[in-house]
Amino acid sequence: MRAEATEAPLAALAAGGKLAFARALARVEEAPFASDTVALLQAAWERPRGVAIGLTGPPGVGKSTLASALVAAWRRLGRTVAVLAVDPSSPRTGGALLGDRTRLALDPEDEGVFVRSLAARDRLGGVAALCFPMLVLARALFDRVLIETVGVGQSETEIVDLADVVVLAVQPASGDTLQFLKAGIAEIPDIAVVTKADLGLVAERSARELEAALALAAPWAHRRPSVLRVAASRGEGIEALLAVLEERASQAAQRDPDRRRRQAERWVLRELEAEALRRLLRNLEHALAPIADRPFAGAAAMLAELDRLLPERQS
Amino acid sequence: MRAEATEAPLAALAAGGKLAFARALARVEEAPFASDTVALLQAAWERPRGVAIGLTGPPGVGKSTLASALVAAWRRLGRTVAVLAVDPSSPRTGGALLGDRTRLALDPEDEGVFVRSLAARDRLGGVAALCFPMLVLARALFDRVLIETVGVGQSETEIVDLADVVVLAVQPASGDTLQFLKAGIAEIPDIAVVTKADLGLVAERSARELEAALALAAPWAHRRPSVLRVAASRGEGIEALLAVLEERASQAAQRDPDRRRRQAERWVLRELEAEALRRLLRNLEHALAPIADRPFAGAAAMLAELDRLLPERQS
Repeated sequence: MRAEATEAPLAALAAGGKLAFARALARVEEAPFASDTVALLQAAWERPRGVAIGLTGPPGVGKSTLASALVAAWRRLGRTVAVLAVDPSSPRTGGALLGDRTRLALDPEDEGVFVRSLAARDRLGGVAALCFPMLVLARALFDRVLIETVGVGQSETEIVDLADVVVLAVQPASGDTLQFLKAGIAEIPDIAVVTKADLGLVAERSARELEAALALAAPWAHRRPSVLRVAASRGEGIEALLAVLEERASQAAQRDPDRRRRQAERWVLRELEAEALRRLLRNLEHALAPIADRPFAGAAAMLAELDRLLPERQS
Repeated sequence: MRAEATEAPLAALAAGGKLAFARALARVEEAPFASDTVALLQAAWERPRGVAIGLTGPPGVGKSTLASALVAAWRRLGRTVAVLAVDPSSPRTGGALLGDRTRLALDPEDEGVFVRSLAARDRLGGVAALCFPMLVLARALFDRVLIETVGVGQSETEIVDLADVVVLAVQPASGDTLQFLKAGIAEIPDIAVVTKADLGLVAERSARELEAALALAAPWAHRRPSVLRVAASRGEGIEALLAVLEERASQAAQRDPDRRRRQAERWVLRELEAEALRRLLRNLEHALAPIADRPFAGAAAMLAELDRLLPERQS
């Protein structure tokens, strides 16, 4: 882990190795707006060292195997890598979706690879709210930051609010193609990967369907996602994926120079909104009771109260 | 259209017929918190005359045909009916999903049936935010209020925030069963209807799959949704559906006496939150610019500003 950042807190962090980085991530998770954290994050945001790659796809598609293969390939190229593996859970059942998440097969002694699992379950705002500041910090210290998240519900779309490059993993013959089209997800990935390409004809047909679907969904040819076949367990297709990934990574800032600024702005505004709302409701708590009894009349009274706190126009 | 409500604005409305009701709905849509609207809605909420039935399901399942058959059946029973047909649109494309929505086949001269189409597209908060106050008004004036909405994305779950009884329509052999289980939707409907039951064996298999899926998803047997087969175009199964529907409708208030209060409270709080947030952002507008340049440092400054507007504790 090396750091080119010149500012003091970042340099100290870079010198501290993986343990210091793990502590800093915990601090960012706990208090992203504390003054020390804000200073660190602002410095990190101004000095991105690497590129953030989002890897998403349905449960069981083989994301962890793919992630392990990518990390190993990056290490062979001499790149440092941080992995943030996010485990979103069903908001309905509250249970974990990934009880037995396959562990990444990595060398724990390697100072050039950092892995952290994150539970997004109790976090309002989901994956993006949780990950964004950690990603900013990781991107200032590592060459590649891989955010791995299960594609359920909103998390596929949230990954766009986080990553510089998005990879979508698709299972052969899973009917995922149709689902992606339905959900409008085809607009999202930079790269689509059909996993388990050792399934031969089935995988090939899925890849062709995906290409056809993406061509329909993404008429802007220059932005159309690349479709690749990978059999990660055999190592097949990883080099080709890596080549496309590195090419996209090197173009990321150039293709959309404003993307990181927009992501940061969205994250900050969402966090501020949540905090503002929390305070507002606390300030209005005494006016809530009438709403249970007389909802519409109570709402009118509460709007009057709101007028007092936040007038329509303020000097 | 008769009204038992004793309060003046409701009585006047009931005497005005469908035209007056249409005008009142438009006023509610436009200004739900204006003092005249609030008085009307509060009176309507305190005097529910009928029962609100939500009808949802994927596009093409035959909801409009089913709705027409139900309305005709209710009219034969002498019940007055209001239909609110909501057209949510994809937030991604902005286009309408139901360009050629099948019109309900109803007698326009019948004063006992009112139909209104609603576009939820431009409405933040979606179907529930738009419909709830209109439903409250309709429920005070009609025996049955049918809210028809396409089941895409969140709208299936939103219908629970609106209706007293929820009917989910499912297409035979559509793979919907699996989707419902995935999305946790199986917890929602009071009644599940397999449409196009004239498809014979295919429809029968879908109904059995649905029953099995619901039994898995809803272990609480007393709350398990009924599964019915309907071929609305031939009128088959409508009487059986109507019988179950009327039974559920008559039990609605008794099974869950707090449901309407919770729905009203949720709607009011969501609307107030949206309004509060809008005002807050307007009040903080001058502090937004630094966030684009220095997102994290800017956020800290904005939190300080927020402290001034809404202190953590206020007397």
